[in-house]
Amino acid sequence: MCKSRLAVLAGGVGAARFLSGLVHVVPPETVTAIVNTGDDIVIHGLKVCPDIDIIIYTLAGIVDTEKGWGIEDDTSNCLSMLGKLGHETWFRLGDGDIGVHIHRTEQLRQGAILEDVIEDIRLALGVPARIVPMTNSPAQTHIDTGTGILPFQEYFVRRACLDPVQNIILKGIEEALPASSVLDAISTAEAVLIAPSNPFVSIGPILSVPGIRDAVIRTNTPVVAISPIIAGAAVKGPAARMMENLGHEVSVLGIARIYRDLVDVMVIDRQDSALAAQIEELGMRVVVTDTVMSSQRKKNSLAKIVLQASENVK
Amino acid sequence: MCKSRLAVLAGGVGAARFLSGLVHVVPPETVTAIVNTGDDIVIHGLKVCPDIDIIIYTLAGIVDTEKGWGIEDDTSNCLSMLGKLGHETWFRLGDGDIGVHIHRTEQLRQGAILEDVIEDIRLALGVPARIVPMTNSPAQTHIDTGTGILPFQEYFVRRACLDPVQNIILKGIEEALPASSVLDAISTAEAVLIAPSNPFVSIGPILSVPGIRDAVIRTNTPVVAISPIIAGAAVKGPAARMMENLGHEVSVLGIARIYRDLVDVMVIDRQDSALAAQIEELGMRVVVTDTVMSSQRKKNSLAKIVLQASENVK
Repeated sequence: MCKSRLAVLAGGVGAARFLSGLVHVVPPETVTAIVNTGDDIVIHGLKVCPDIDIIIYTLAGIVDTEKGWGIEDDTSNCLSMLGKLGHETWFRLGDGDIGVHIHRTEQLRQGAILEDVIEDIRLALGVPARIVPMTNSPAQTHIDTGTGILPFQEYFVRRACLDPVQNIILKGIEEALPASSVLDAISTAEAVLIAPSNPFVSIGPILSVPGIRDAVIRTNTPVVAISPIIAGAAVKGPAARMMENLGHEVSVLGIARIYRDLVDVMVIDRQDSALAAQIEELGMRVVVTDTVMSSQRKKNSLAKIVLQASENVK
Repeated sequence: MCKSRLAVLAGGVGAARFLSGLVHVVPPETVTAIVNTGDDIVIHGLKVCPDIDIIIYTLAGIVDTEKGWGIEDDTSNCLSMLGKLGHETWFRLGDGDIGVHIHRTEQLRQGAILEDVIEDIRLALGVPARIVPMTNSPAQTHIDTGTGILPFQEYFVRRACLDPVQNIILKGIEEALPASSVLDAISTAEAVLIAPSNPFVSIGPILSVPGIRDAVIRTNTPVVAISPIIAGAAVKGPAARMMENLGHEVSVLGIARIYRDLVDVMVIDRQDSALAAQIEELGMRVVVTDTVMSSQRKKNSLAKIVLQASENVK
């Protein structure tokens, strides 16, 4: 068994971009991404793991880089037909993408475990980094909007994150078990990295699987988080609005407060350097750099700086 | 309820072409196609009904006319992905096509009955003719090659009909029940037509569903068969080779002998006119015409002649 050296808690697009830099600066097979599955959805009878798939497609080099998700140059004839047959089509699924979902659905129906199915998919698509779901259990994130409770993808895709967020409900999370290699990946890692993902609906569900938060707290290894908030806004997705709705300060300081029990180093963007001192007062180090991952060079550079930060803690 | 006026026992491509002429010369809603489901297959976890789908796509005007099956200009990104993930890809499925299979699979899993699912699909795709599976039961055609027993699509697609055919096994056919509207469609029809389909693996399974053969024999209405064999060869598929393997004369006379208990009129091609007298000796009338459906005009013309033949019997 190859000993896992870096464990990365990961959501979707932001995490995938960070990981695509990381695997350029360390041997990819030393990286284990522990990925949110709280936003999985069963649609048209197909089991879809959006965050997992975004990361696999990104690391396989087939992602639609424009959108950040889905497969590049994919067609959508299958979804069009489903639409003609009366299905809702708000959850966009490409044809090649659906091949992955058909495979996963069929494997699970035959009794396979989610993490094994994902392992097969990432190997088949030539991804050398390990990609592990946070759990094999069907724990599902829901959004309490104050007027109703929406399954995550209803909130996120169908209703375009327009509802207020009063509370985040992780249904079934108390009964969930970490996937078999998760705790091991954290305890044997030389650094635990928290990707620039949504702290409530990407990293939050991972840390809420019983045993994972404790493993991150207990580890002697450095824990480094990259802020998903830059200059008071999220690069992508509803993180900023959620922070506001849930009563957090919408800034890297707000992020640092959420992670204060866990994190040794907070990596923030240059635009937020004025908040570094306040973050350090929370008891963590701060590294200020360029965190906007707008090119492969910048992704690689961010990954290098994060690794250096983790080494400096030791 | 609209009273069904024409009941057509139907297989795949040949039947679809015949039906596409028929619905041009009579009101399509007076036609009920009773379709073979013995060659259905569950593949990649998806329930596929090849003969049903060929007929729906043809009558919906979206069939790939070159191949005779599948959807015109369909892509195949889903199957390519399934191939990358280790699935066998000998059973060609287009992306739009897979949309139909996902829909059907999901509906059946939720407890729907096959004939109701097919009714929904044909209506959604704008097909006014009724399309009814011979049965809702999972009776499956197998080919005994003498050295093994192959599920039909293994013989037909995967092994390209190259194996000798010693016997045709209709597994589960004794327990199958006709779909709810089948017997009614036959008993209320003004004519029962047997499409130019394979008599062993297309028409044979339909007639073997308990009750259907009896209904065709008992009806007072004319029964007209169009020969799938022209000048000793099948227009498409393995019918001729099967006839030979199974000890039948490979000719329209051989076809007439297979249908002798059922049929009042046999429609044969001009190329076979020399056999007309021998067929008439079996106790049926013969109509000689051009049965090669190489254009819409020829399809329409054949349909008209078949209808006239049925009216002349009365």
